[in-house]
Amino acid sequence: MTDSSAILLAHCPDQPGLVRAVAGFIHDHGGNIIHFDQHVDSARNVFFMRAEWSLEDFTLPQGELAAALASRVTGPFEMNWQLWMNDQRPRLAILVSRDHHCLYDLLSRHEAGELAADIALVMSNHPDLGTAATRFNVPFFHLPVTAATKPAAEAAQLQVLRDHGVDTVVLARYMQVLSPTFVARYPDRIINIHHSFLPAFPGARPYHSAHARGVKIIGATSHYVTDELDEGPIIHQDVVKVTHKDSVADFIRKGRDLEKIVLSKAVWFHTRRRVLTYHNKTVVFD
Amino acid sequence: MTDSSAILLAHCPDQPGLVRAVAGFIHDHGGNIIHFDQHVDSARNVFFMRAEWSLEDFTLPQGELAAALASRVTGPFEMNWQLWMNDQRPRLAILVSRDHHCLYDLLSRHEAGELAADIALVMSNHPDLGTAATRFNVPFFHLPVTAATKPAAEAAQLQVLRDHGVDTVVLARYMQVLSPTFVARYPDRIINIHHSFLPAFPGARPYHSAHARGVKIIGATSHYVTDELDEGPIIHQDVVKVTHKDSVADFIRKGRDLEKIVLSKAVWFHTRRRVLTYHNKTVVFD
Amino acid sequence: MTDSSAILLAHCPDQPGLVRAVAGFIHDHGGNIIHFDQHVDSARNVFFMRAEWSLEDFTLPQGELAAALASRVTGPFEMNWQLWMNDQRPRLAILVSRDHHCLYDLLSRHEAGELAADIALVMSNHPDLGTAATRFNVPFFHLPVTAATKPAAEAAQLQVLRDHGVDTVVLARYMQVLSPTFVARYPDRIINIHHSFLPAFPGARPYHSAHARGVKIIGATSHYVTDELDEGPIIHQDVVKVTHKDSVADFIRKGRDLEKIVLSKAVWFHTRRRVLTYHNKTVVFD
Amino acid sequence: MTDSSAILLAHCPDQPGLVRAVAGFIHDHGGNIIHFDQHVDSARNVFFMRAEWSLEDFTLPQGELAAALASRVTGPFEMNWQLWMNDQRPRLAILVSRDHHCLYDLLSRHEAGELAADIALVMSNHPDLGTAATRFNVPFFHLPVTAATKPAAEAAQLQVLRDHGVDTVVLARYMQVLSPTFVARYPDRIINIHHSFLPAFPGARPYHSAHARGVKIIGATSHYVTDELDEGPIIHQDVVKVTHKDSVADFIRKGRDLEKIVLSKAVWFHTRRRVLTYHNKTVVFD
Repeated sequence: MTDSSAILLAHCPDQPGLVRAVAGFIHDHGGNIIHFDQHVDSARNVFFMRAEWSLEDFTLPQGELAAALASRVTGPFEMNWQLWMNDQRPRLAILVSRDHHCLYDLLSRHEAGELAADIALVMSNHPDLGTAATRFNVPFFHLPVTAATKPAAEAAQLQVLRDHGVDTVVLARYMQVLSPTFVARYPDRIINIHHSFLPAFPGARPYHSAHARGVKIIGATSHYVTDELDEGPIIHQDVVKVTHKDSVADFIRKGRDLEKIVLSKAVWFHTRRRVLTYHNKTVVFD
Repeated sequence: MTDSSAILLAHCPDQPGLVRAVAGFIHDHGGNIIHFDQHVDSARNVFFMRAEWSLEDFTLPQGELAAALASRVTGPFEMNWQLWMNDQRPRLAILVSRDHHCLYDLLSRHEAGELAADIALVMSNHPDLGTAATRFNVPFFHLPVTAATKPAAEAAQLQVLRDHGVDTVVLARYMQVLSPTFVARYPDRIINIHHSFLPAFPGARPYHSAHARGVKIIGATSHYVTDELDEGPIIHQDVVKVTHKDSVADFIRKGRDLEKIVLSKAVWFHTRRRVLTYHNKTVVFD
Repeated sequence: MTDSSAILLAHCPDQPGLVRAVAGFIHDHGGNIIHFDQHVDSARNVFFMRAEWSLEDFTLPQGELAAALASRVTGPFEMNWQLWMNDQRPRLAILVSRDHHCLYDLLSRHEAGELAADIALVMSNHPDLGTAATRFNVPFFHLPVTAATKPAAEAAQLQVLRDHGVDTVVLARYMQVLSPTFVARYPDRIINIHHSFLPAFPGARPYHSAHARGVKIIGATSHYVTDELDEGPIIHQDVVKVTHKDSVADFIRKGRDLEKIVLSKAVWFHTRRRVLTYHNKTVVFD
Repeated sequence: MTDSSAILLAHCPDQPGLVRAVAGFIHDHGGNIIHFDQHVDSARNVFFMRAEWSLEDFTLPQGELAAALASRVTGPFEMNWQLWMNDQRPRLAILVSRDHHCLYDLLSRHEAGELAADIALVMSNHPDLGTAATRFNVPFFHLPVTAATKPAAEAAQLQVLRDHGVDTVVLARYMQVLSPTFVARYPDRIINIHHSFLPAFPGARPYHSAHARGVKIIGATSHYVTDELDEGPIIHQDVVKVTHKDSVADFIRKGRDLEKIVLSKAVWFHTRRRVLTYHNKTVVFD
């Protein structure tokens, strides 16, 4: 039984009194702060914060919380803000093509209860991974995508997402580029895994490029998807050493281990409401 | 030109209103918070915090700050606390034996202005590293220590430290065990580097033990010195991979790179007032 | 279509002429060396080697290879040796208790064809993970083990292993200690994952111990099982950073990611015939 | 007392019999192999090797060794090869500008006898680091370089290098681009440290670029210098994690620790004759 808590994510121009205002609001209504993280980007004069407080003795009804916060804190300080209850579970759709390592990693974490989210469905432009989804009792949708059918296919995909109440899309080695129309529907809520240490080796076949260049370390990068390919805000990265002995196939094999861990960490941070985006970068309160 | 700021490090039993009380105090006197880090050890119900705020528009004179804090915040909440001005530079003594890698690393960082501390002196039980200290224009004291002379030698060491206003002692591969008497003079202010990934391989010749055990990773650990050898609160650790190809000599060579970086990081955290100790552990606000 | 190759793993007292003798033997019979790794432990004067050569133009029939090697090379040099064909796939049994992260990781790698081995069966002292094995079409055996029934239970386990032609046992978070009788049946062929950076924190509840000690890095260790608990030859280790913010639950969560990767790497090295053991240590030709 | 040994570095088209030919040559003349590393780039069908053997009982005089190798081994197999005696110490020139962290790291390693090389001189386009060199009793040359004087300045630099018998040039945060004429004089013998994880962020101000992009890991890369800026064969790379809390100044500070370790490792590999270059990549026998 996890206790009930509220989470406020916010950013605004920095000024004196911000911490006090938030902490005072929480305290005035009987809340006890569990986590309080703040960060000031002094170059841009922006204040970022994440506060989580227990609702056990909180005197404001949940239905009045947002309005009270807005009138007393986030409004006066002109905050860009999100308020979440810790029991609001994100509903995820996982989009895949043919590689299954990231998919299985997410499905098994989900089964273990690690993600604090529900996997509503798995969707693919290929039929291959239907078995994987079905094994874990997750609905699978096979929607082929070709250059010619892409607008219609994306419309169908979006309809499925809507029908299933999906609020976050995870691209778990999904090998199609999403259109700006699709991306605009899920701003800062589409998480991709790119199989390189961005900004090195964007685009296709990064392991081949890394091998040709003779790098001694390869990486993987999870990021929010924007209209610029592989240019969105980076959430998490990790790397592994390689040597001259490693072929492209070894890079791919070692890279798979990175990809699945890096993507799952990004999903974990996102579903725990620990990520803020700003100026194409992220603040990750870990 | 670094702006003037104040730093409060504190811990106390957790209870509602702590963040508000500190933030309110700072705000009431015109301070603007630069960093505010807090942590709650929920298993022990302890609240830890580090707040740094600008003194630019702060209305309380520095001479009255501690008393005001005590009466309004740290007293009522029964805090264990430290208050620092960011321009109060710690005065370090570096104790060494014969290995120079950690010493040179600290001396060159000091020369580059990285440490926010003054190296008051270097002291050794051997004469070998006098040249190193002198090259960097730091006073060097050679005080031999034998089993028979240890009490007298330590008394002489302590006298030198007092004479030079030393408040923090750095053991940069100093191969003598300090007596409880010595340790008691600098509680949580003696930083040691141990050449293993503690708690594995405490005591003498850890690289030999690690090699004999056949580990695939070796480490280094910086920690505050307590009466229990290699058992004090850990400040920082790092590791490096080794293989069957590495001899004990290779372990020692690779380990030197770890030791100097890990020790210097611990000194950096300490001199920036980022470390709290509690129950033989550290909270490091990085 | 992988080309056919032979792999020789050997160690013996070091002396001049060893590399020539092996390379000469291979060359005389038309083999082309694909990999040739050797290592000399100069402290112990032991020569270790792994040679892999193509059988495409090899003139010796496979049935005569071992005898020819023995008479010309491994006999005269008194080598301790193993000879494998690259298409001899190890048959694995995976023993588990209740945690599924290592099991799913191995099952999904197996499905992807990464392991160069067959998973013959999954066996557990609990029924919980039967579903996981069955999902991947791997036979599952539930054999309860209690203190009273342990000898009989182990006898039953060994019978199942024999019946299924198992040659390698993988303990994927199997929470029972194997008896010396069991261990003696699979010398250097039982691979365990221990959830700490050995030799730190052997035995039960290592994450709790690591948290209590306040370490800044946690690890996982895969090793061959011997009669001494958590004391066998280490195959692979890896680590991840932790901070004061991480609770024991966070250690466990972060540790799971380490455990599955570290165990799977050890299994990969083992099944690719890249590991030699000697004096309770491993030589891993990577 | 290090024993005398010979080192052969070579590459050639792969074919059967190469290992035997080299091992046979060494054995026929009474040498005992200490290290034998080989690697086959199967995509390009190239064989790479490094052999080191003891000269203790070697029957060929050193003066005849190269000719005998050429006629019996390297000639027939059309090898591109280098032969070194382990007591031939490379003579290094260290080129610097104003940052001293890499310089001090190399000077202190040199003093500790770690490098197996002699530092013949330090040269700079600025006078600032003369004190550092002089402290370690290494000759210092201040040769200013401007756009207008660059050809003349490089001619003067090259003259100094020749006069001091320098065979390897280390760019230890030297902020001038060398001309193709200069580079051509020291092919595969100019080692640079670039303060990014190449190929990400080549050119000027990589930490600023990395900060603007919002990466979660920064790196450093040591490589041989070629005519293409930051495009030469990579010798070694390493990385460190950063967070949203790190400013550009923090990136620079954390990066300094990487740069000095990564550069010194590259120098170590190079001076130990462990690096081969091929197709703008390196083979590093570690």
